[in-house]
Amino acid sequence: MNDVISQRAQEIQPFHVMDILAQARELEAQGRDIIHLEIGEPDFSTPQPVIDAAMKSLQKGETFYTPALGLTALRERLAQWYRDTHQLDISYRRIVVTPGASGALLLVMGALLDKDHEVLMTDPGYPCNRHFARFVEGQARSIPVGPETAYQLTAAHIHEHWQKNTQLALVASPSNPTGTVLNREQLQSLSDAVREHRGRLVVDEIYHGLTSNAEQLPSVLEVDDEAIVVNSFSKFFGMTGWRLGWLVVPESLVPVMDRLAQNLFLAAPTIAQHAAMSAFEPAVMETLKWRSQQFTRRREMLLPALKDLGFQFAAEPEGAFYLYADCSQWLNEQTPDSLTLCRRLLDEAGVAITPGHDFGDYQAKTHCRFAYTTDIERLSEAVRRLQQFSERYR
Amino acid sequence: MNDVISQRAQEIQPFHVMDILAQARELEAQGRDIIHLEIGEPDFSTPQPVIDAAMKSLQKGETFYTPALGLTALRERLAQWYRDTHQLDISYRRIVVTPGASGALLLVMGALLDKDHEVLMTDPGYPCNRHFARFVEGQARSIPVGPETAYQLTAAHIHEHWQKNTQLALVASPSNPTGTVLNREQLQSLSDAVREHRGRLVVDEIYHGLTSNAEQLPSVLEVDDEAIVVNSFSKFFGMTGWRLGWLVVPESLVPVMDRLAQNLFLAAPTIAQHAAMSAFEPAVMETLKWRSQQFTRRREMLLPALKDLGFQFAAEPEGAFYLYADCSQWLNEQTPDSLTLCRRLLDEAGVAITPGHDFGDYQAKTHCRFAYTTDIERLSEAVRRLQQFSERYR
Repeated sequence: MNDVISQRAQEIQPFHVMDILAQARELEAQGRDIIHLEIGEPDFSTPQPVIDAAMKSLQKGETFYTPALGLTALRERLAQWYRDTHQLDISYRRIVVTPGASGALLLVMGALLDKDHEVLMTDPGYPCNRHFARFVEGQARSIPVGPETAYQLTAAHIHEHWQKNTQLALVASPSNPTGTVLNREQLQSLSDAVREHRGRLVVDEIYHGLTSNAEQLPSVLEVDDEAIVVNSFSKFFGMTGWRLGWLVVPESLVPVMDRLAQNLFLAAPTIAQHAAMSAFEPAVMETLKWRSQQFTRRREMLLPALKDLGFQFAAEPEGAFYLYADCSQWLNEQTPDSLTLCRRLLDEAGVAITPGHDFGDYQAKTHCRFAYTTDIERLSEAVRRLQQFSERYR
Repeated sequence: MNDVISQRAQEIQPFHVMDILAQARELEAQGRDIIHLEIGEPDFSTPQPVIDAAMKSLQKGETFYTPALGLTALRERLAQWYRDTHQLDISYRRIVVTPGASGALLLVMGALLDKDHEVLMTDPGYPCNRHFARFVEGQARSIPVGPETAYQLTAAHIHEHWQKNTQLALVASPSNPTGTVLNREQLQSLSDAVREHRGRLVVDEIYHGLTSNAEQLPSVLEVDDEAIVVNSFSKFFGMTGWRLGWLVVPESLVPVMDRLAQNLFLAAPTIAQHAAMSAFEPAVMETLKWRSQQFTRRREMLLPALKDLGFQFAAEPEGAFYLYADCSQWLNEQTPDSLTLCRRLLDEAGVAITPGHDFGDYQAKTHCRFAYTTDIERLSEAVRRLQQFSERYR
């Protein structure tokens, strides 16, 4: 029996955070109290009106497949969303409803990235991005980025790293793991650079809405109508488990997205699509904006507290729910890298965070990510525990 | 701007049935009554207890991600299902919950099919299969199969077509589009042949439960513990829009499936997983068995009626909800192939069926698929319309 898995699968690495999480669950099973700052999922459950809409839809027996591109009504609602929040007139036809941002990224890579061709992305960055590229036998070119560019790609990076076989550049604003954003000028400059090389810019906007002045955060579509947007109902809308996201693509790419979606997914989950239609109601928006403010409050508490503890932040995190900390000052002979530090903090302080290794290679050993996806009291308790650990061991 | 889509995407063809469906919708918009025999989706909605379970789960706010392999309770319930229906003792750890059988097939191809390596499959067959292989830059070797082997692969096919770079053989029982099944001896013989070449056998069992004597239909796991099963809640369980399926894999492959699922999907939809837990309740099973009997009744009505009309069935369809008809006797100068016939039947008789072209190349021009996913009255009306069309034009 051939027990060999594909080369592709061998090269797609497991996440260290899964080990951290498993170890945390084990400690919890032993009765230990663990504060989870490793999880990239909002602690708020789905707003009640969205749940109510799902139940109403279920009562009507709406359990069949939808079209591969999604329910027209939902695509129209999303087009309206771009009018309302970005004053953009996007035809609903350009909106492709997907099974989560994961499905959206798979479609983009499948439709646009050829075998052995390259997509530029940041290191550190969302780890699945390079794996999606690898999955379709493309290549991710991970560009080391530091606080000097707020961990974002710039036009200079594009020009320096673009190869003959580069097809795409992928950025995220706000970014995971760094929480930094791209303003309009930066997006324009990236767009210009990518166009100069006749490539395409893909912007992950799944953390849109989760910044202190969310209204001002531009979508790339405001500066580049030919860019591709990846978005999701998971983060801002609090609908992680529903697996619903979307793409905005140029009209010319709709047929290929339709064709690939028919083959890869058939369609996004029907109930989620019906539920999501209620996600734009004023009452829901109010809830979501309040939640976004809570994330800001948490950030404003946690960031200075971590700085006081010797974690360093050379670029200011402005959104998502992540802080990407330089933990060099916490490292020593017994704790030579962030992975060891994460294990020790979990084991000895009961605080779970994610090592930089999960987001790339560049300076991974001296960085870790805090996700403020728990309430401010637990965050304060985490700070207290880190303080104690620090006093004991450093 | 580089508007070129990937070579991969160019080679993934659209389904002809989508054109048929679009044309049907257009005719309906004009007020025409169309009988839909082109759709591979049961006409029964999800059983009420499953819907109730979903609503209960929503009321509890269970809207977060599940583990990538699925809820343990659901995996255990599926293991129980194999004990109950197949007297098989499968550890729940070997069960991977996926976003539909689509997600399951993507995992299998991603984990096991290397770039430029081959997977054997039937022509005719489910069209997405070859596209999944193409998506990961593997190759589908489609083997022409006819009624002489009930449109299924045999050990002789495996031996004849296996190449140095072949890794997998994929079969379906019951099959789409032919509705034929593999009995225990046939599965054993396929398994032996594939093992002889040190490859792996993958069996699509998504239409299990939809045969006249469903209890007797074997799972490949009864003869080959190392085979991979693809299954789904869509067809027998009537849960298409929920996007929920599963894999059974050897224990050694669980880690790679976990790793790929984390990257590609994060997890299957949470609500669907909670709902599916109720799909095994006795009341639901009774409903599902009644539905399965309806499909049998429809087949027993439609099959002889189509034979009377000159459609030929050299191999007996036993399950799923498809009849794969040789329509040679319906072809003539004005209607030279099945694609033209399908268009004419839709336009002139108001009956929508799928041309053989969607399932491969072999004898595609002389075959078409009837899906009996509508009630017996509508099926009778379809037969009446075909009769009229036949009298007018043949």
